[in-house]
Amino acid sequence: MLSLKDLKNLFEQELENPVFPADYKNLYDPANYIMSLGGKRIRPIMVYAALEAFSKPYKWGTDAAKAVEVFHNFSLVHDDIMDAADIRRSQQTVHVKWDTNTAILSGDVMLVKAYELLQNYDMEMLPDLLSVFSRTAKEVCEGQRLDMDFEQRDDVSIEEYISMITFKTAVLLACSLQLGAIIAGVDKDDQRHIYEFGKNVGIAFQIQDDIIDTYGDSSKTGKKQGGDILQNKKTYLYLKSLQLLSDSQKNELEGLYNSKDHDPEDKIKQVTKLFDESFVKIHAEELKNGYRDLALSHLAALDLPDDKTKTLLELVDFLQDRDN
Amino acid sequence: MLSLKDLKNLFEQELENPVFPADYKNLYDPANYIMSLGGKRIRPIMVYAALEAFSKPYKWGTDAAKAVEVFHNFSLVHDDIMDAADIRRSQQTVHVKWDTNTAILSGDVMLVKAYELLQNYDMEMLPDLLSVFSRTAKEVCEGQRLDMDFEQRDDVSIEEYISMITFKTAVLLACSLQLGAIIAGVDKDDQRHIYEFGKNVGIAFQIQDDIIDTYGDSSKTGKKQGGDILQNKKTYLYLKSLQLLSDSQKNELEGLYNSKDHDPEDKIKQVTKLFDESFVKIHAEELKNGYRDLALSHLAALDLPDDKTKTLLELVDFLQDRDN
Repeated sequence: MLSLKDLKNLFEQELENPVFPADYKNLYDPANYIMSLGGKRIRPIMVYAALEAFSKPYKWGTDAAKAVEVFHNFSLVHDDIMDAADIRRSQQTVHVKWDTNTAILSGDVMLVKAYELLQNYDMEMLPDLLSVFSRTAKEVCEGQRLDMDFEQRDDVSIEEYISMITFKTAVLLACSLQLGAIIAGVDKDDQRHIYEFGKNVGIAFQIQDDIIDTYGDSSKTGKKQGGDILQNKKTYLYLKSLQLLSDSQKNELEGLYNSKDHDPEDKIKQVTKLFDESFVKIHAEELKNGYRDLALSHLAALDLPDDKTKTLLELVDFLQDRDN
Repeated sequence: MLSLKDLKNLFEQELENPVFPADYKNLYDPANYIMSLGGKRIRPIMVYAALEAFSKPYKWGTDAAKAVEVFHNFSLVHDDIMDAADIRRSQQTVHVKWDTNTAILSGDVMLVKAYELLQNYDMEMLPDLLSVFSRTAKEVCEGQRLDMDFEQRDDVSIEEYISMITFKTAVLLACSLQLGAIIAGVDKDDQRHIYEFGKNVGIAFQIQDDIIDTYGDSSKTGKKQGGDILQNKKTYLYLKSLQLLSDSQKNELEGLYNSKDHDPEDKIKQVTKLFDESFVKIHAEELKNGYRDLALSHLAALDLPDDKTKTLLELVDFLQDRDN
């Protein structure tokens, strides 16, 4: 029985041969660079974990695992341009280390490469693999679009927020599991259950992420506390607080989010105080647990032997360790 | 027997239903916008023309035709960002009409859509379609990268220049024909001949384009004469002239290309004079005819009935009408 840590190491071994060729250096070096920055490799691990769960050799999933990791890194390269982010995993982002045009073009060729890796599978499973993958890829773009649109909007509903995190984060996790399930050859019902398991785990993970950003211990998370607040991110904590607070507190919270020249530490402190007064953390924990329970019910429906269930349960914990 | 003009009209009819959905307006509107700007639709027509040439219903090619047109337009959206181009087909480019982030993301989802359209084909032909398409998509990125690299380089060889235009322009034309041939169900040999026909026609077309940019009649071409010269483009005319001219003329030409504050009209006039003195136009015509002849020999190898050969020959003329 391979642990997730084993699977991660096995995948890292696969990456020792660079995914992209050595020629066209200004095209492929940036792609190999971002792939080499590490991270938790959660998506490829999920492809492997699905194969393990369905008692098939993890190795069958290698090309699909590379495909989802290449796709994820493509989205990071382009998102970092859009967010004007300078640093990714303590290193320079591609558009800073090279330039924006390079980041656009290298990102493009990464997306093509993700498809090319999937093309290595037999024609019997290829249509299913591509259908899940393309739908997911579109949804990830839709999620990124929603996230960008939310910055300009004052009327984001909690439902819309859940859609956004579902598309931007959860569906690619779900897709990774389903690709593994398709390669394992399981039926559509089991594919759907493992997909829904992954999707709901992903949503729970993102809500947890929101909580940690405000309430986490930065010595453990490695991220500065209050980052979302400083970026005026319309997270669940923010949107739900607006519902829970009195009118005057609500105005205060909106005022803090709209102010541009507030002292950062003081802004975090005041927003957190309003979050506390709304008891939104309790609501967030409840919502998170709801998605987690939903995930577990889909896991139960798979009716796997106990040791196989363990692999997928381990995923839930693995996701909580922050460093995605 | 359908003419290329008929095929163009039939494809335009297919586009009357927008390729992209009406929701996520900031994601899909820019994609529908660029698709609606028109152009010669040469790539989808090539998919159709291949089916016609092999005596199969053009209609079988519709999804592949849309796929290559969507891919081509994706590359225009991203290239226009990289080239900081404001105008495309007399209209604002996407990154100007919306913004750069929108152009990046909408381009991304267009690339996904191109694959999704190909996924509509039967699993028997899907691996072949995807294999040609992904290889071509990578080559188009490699061609764009070479083009960008050439701007910074003073040692571009004519061989490298031919590689660049082959990848940036010719392979997608060739790919479009091969996709049609695969859908028509012809064997690998015929697929290769029609691919090589399209590739060599494409290279000849691009050399013709270089000639027209300097020597064309702008009232016919609709483009300002000397555009390449003002952009210091290392075209065939420039690179070959450097080989043909005396050392002092060569220095003069390089000096003109490196100067930043030369009067534009005067710069075009002086560079053209040096081109004239090198007789490079004759060399360019010869090279173009060489690629054209190569294309025709692959066409002959297809051994098609005369009326079918005519469709593909018409393509050669169709490409010369400038407005791609």
